[in-house]
Amino acid sequence: MSLQGNAMIGQSGGPSIVINASLAGAIEAARDTTQIKTFYGALHGMNGILHQQFIDLFREDYELVEQIRYTPSAALGTCRLKPTDADLQRCMEVFKAHNIRYFFYIGGDDSQLACHKISQLAKSSDWDMNIVGIPKTVDNDLVITDNCPGFGSAARLAASAVQFVSRDAEAFGNCEVMEIMGRNAGWITGATQVGRQEERDGPHLVYLPEVTVDPDKFLADCRENFDKWGYLVIAVSEGFSFAASDIPTTSQRIDEFGHARLGGVAQALSDMVEEELGVRSRFDRLGNLQRSFGLAASQVDLDEAYAVGQDAVRRACQGESDVMITIQRKSSEPFVFECEDTSLMSVAGKIKVVPEEWINEEHNGITEEFIEYCRPLMAGRSEPMPVGIPHYPRFQKHTISGKLSEYGRE
Amino acid sequence: MSLQGNAMIGQSGGPSIVINASLAGAIEAARDTTQIKTFYGALHGMNGILHQQFIDLFREDYELVEQIRYTPSAALGTCRLKPTDADLQRCMEVFKAHNIRYFFYIGGDDSQLACHKISQLAKSSDWDMNIVGIPKTVDNDLVITDNCPGFGSAARLAASAVQFVSRDAEAFGNCEVMEIMGRNAGWITGATQVGRQEERDGPHLVYLPEVTVDPDKFLADCRENFDKWGYLVIAVSEGFSFAASDIPTTSQRIDEFGHARLGGVAQALSDMVEEELGVRSRFDRLGNLQRSFGLAASQVDLDEAYAVGQDAVRRACQGESDVMITIQRKSSEPFVFECEDTSLMSVAGKIKVVPEEWINEEHNGITEEFIEYCRPLMAGRSEPMPVGIPHYPRFQKHTISGKLSEYGRE
Repeated sequence: MSLQGNAMIGQSGGPSIVINASLAGAIEAARDTTQIKTFYGALHGMNGILHQQFIDLFREDYELVEQIRYTPSAALGTCRLKPTDADLQRCMEVFKAHNIRYFFYIGGDDSQLACHKISQLAKSSDWDMNIVGIPKTVDNDLVITDNCPGFGSAARLAASAVQFVSRDAEAFGNCEVMEIMGRNAGWITGATQVGRQEERDGPHLVYLPEVTVDPDKFLADCRENFDKWGYLVIAVSEGFSFAASDIPTTSQRIDEFGHARLGGVAQALSDMVEEELGVRSRFDRLGNLQRSFGLAASQVDLDEAYAVGQDAVRRACQGESDVMITIQRKSSEPFVFECEDTSLMSVAGKIKVVPEEWINEEHNGITEEFIEYCRPLMAGRSEPMPVGIPHYPRFQKHTISGKLSEYGRE
Repeated sequence: MSLQGNAMIGQSGGPSIVINASLAGAIEAARDTTQIKTFYGALHGMNGILHQQFIDLFREDYELVEQIRYTPSAALGTCRLKPTDADLQRCMEVFKAHNIRYFFYIGGDDSQLACHKISQLAKSSDWDMNIVGIPKTVDNDLVITDNCPGFGSAARLAASAVQFVSRDAEAFGNCEVMEIMGRNAGWITGATQVGRQEERDGPHLVYLPEVTVDPDKFLADCRENFDKWGYLVIAVSEGFSFAASDIPTTSQRIDEFGHARLGGVAQALSDMVEEELGVRSRFDRLGNLQRSFGLAASQVDLDEAYAVGQDAVRRACQGESDVMITIQRKSSEPFVFECEDTSLMSVAGKIKVVPEEWINEEHNGITEEFIEYCRPLMAGRSEPMPVGIPHYPRFQKHTISGKLSEYGRE
């Protein structure tokens, strides 16, 4: 349905190196339409909607928006709110009070689920609006889409970092274990193998959460590789665990979504190697750099993120709703993609793990197909990096006032 | 004393992003002399000397050496060996057997001490040789020299990383604590403040091992900054501790030099903030990336490292011995330096910490003088980064055979 009114956009979940490219794409596409009068930016995702904390994105300088396009991390702020039914009702009230007829949410599967629920609520409360989800996750775990904007840059950073710490380990003749983001899906961890250009390069062993490994087999593989290369580099997903459950690899803390806060598997593996093989071993955790370290941005990833932002606005203005934009790969070399869409229901709350056939039989590495899938997404930028310490702009933030009374829930 | 014979070079201690620039500088300078017949590269530092594991550096392709110049981490391999008297005696035997008349060791204060001991031993055993130390440490803790090759790039990486995770913390409205290398000297940690271009940018609080802080003052500073900016970024050296000694901030493990293996202070601070302020807090440890992440290399640092390598060979060939090359700053803007030398005794086993007057009165940040000192060392490279995943060459390694029987000590 083609609607006249205001639009709103928010960013949700863990930021990525390219999430602002999607935002810039949406803003720039929205400027070209006649249907969107004011483009609301919700600060800190759904929290900004609930508490009516908005900025007017059409009042931001064009040049600044173009700079924000290349700025890592969520320029509007983000949140990890899992909305209750009351929260969703409040969203609808806010949308009605501000005449919001278009809503865009940049996020992962949890965010797409929230979009779908809002979409249903709009229908049942007779409020005409078009809702389009914009895919974003470093974890690359959304279904249907070929890949997720955010992934290519995280993968490029992780693969680069593993190459660098590999050389450090090689210089000492050490073992090095690098812990990489990935609760249920090992996409980023697997992608570190793309950096292995010679057999003697790390990572020699790659462990994904999709498979379990017997601790004895793990140690045997470590010993074999260490003896062969004189050093050893292991890339491991934070969600990886051994077949035997008594070896602790994750911490016990719980995050806002009720998921265990991960962390600790690299140290656990490193300690095992040191004790059982008698070789010096070190570990690193790539941590939040995976979703923010702009010096490793992938140009393909930036292009994808911008395209899905633009496409979301265009499709919504053409009347589409209750869908998420997807990436369709047309060719790998050169990398060519098109944007499509899919129903929110088809992606909401679902997780795409690494397919079994892309993990090697020994469960300690990935296959050539995985590498061919990843490599084109991990191409860097050809332009020079900043010579000083990188510094990025922020929005000017022209505030839009609330129209409803304050919302009780924090 | 001007001598004819062979030369040997080794790399010691933690690698750096630019340590191979010093090696390349030494090789290229050595090619230009008539005094050095064969240039031995000792593999894994002193271990390579003890066990006669050498390569012939003059047989490496010129173009390859030029590429190695820009390759992070120690291309010859490194070690953390603290030599015993027996080890030093063995070194002398090896030097005599292979007619080594020049010895260059690229390392920190421990390595310069080893050089000085060998120098004394050479004199007392009537073996004419010139020994020159080449400074290298990411920690920047060598005395007399203006700064240490290795520091500028580590500082640039750390300052960049803190800027990136700051934006991640700002997007969430979180606290973020970044743990940075530095056992006794907080140079790298302090340098992260160079990245703070606006007051609202992180890092808001910077804690160095040179000072202690009262935990209550720490929490009050955290609260004040969090309330002011809506997020909080703390940079902390791994060697930092509170005035009260009962708050554990380091692990109990011991490394080969008898130093405590550090790690844990960021998590400890993060947990404190989360519990006492009731705000979400995360931590990261920059870890081994600080001495290997080539994408953040500083051009000034690369230039310095290359220059000290060249200068060491030139001075040794002119008859100097028992000295370490130093950097003398002639001007900060533009950055201009000259190489000088100083006796090994003047630097061996000594540590340069951040001067008290460069740390602010509140012990939670650095002064403008510190920033002016650091900034020129942290300038990046103007040339484009690799578009694919970075990959670097290795030496061809033409082996030189041993002349003595095997050495018993591992």
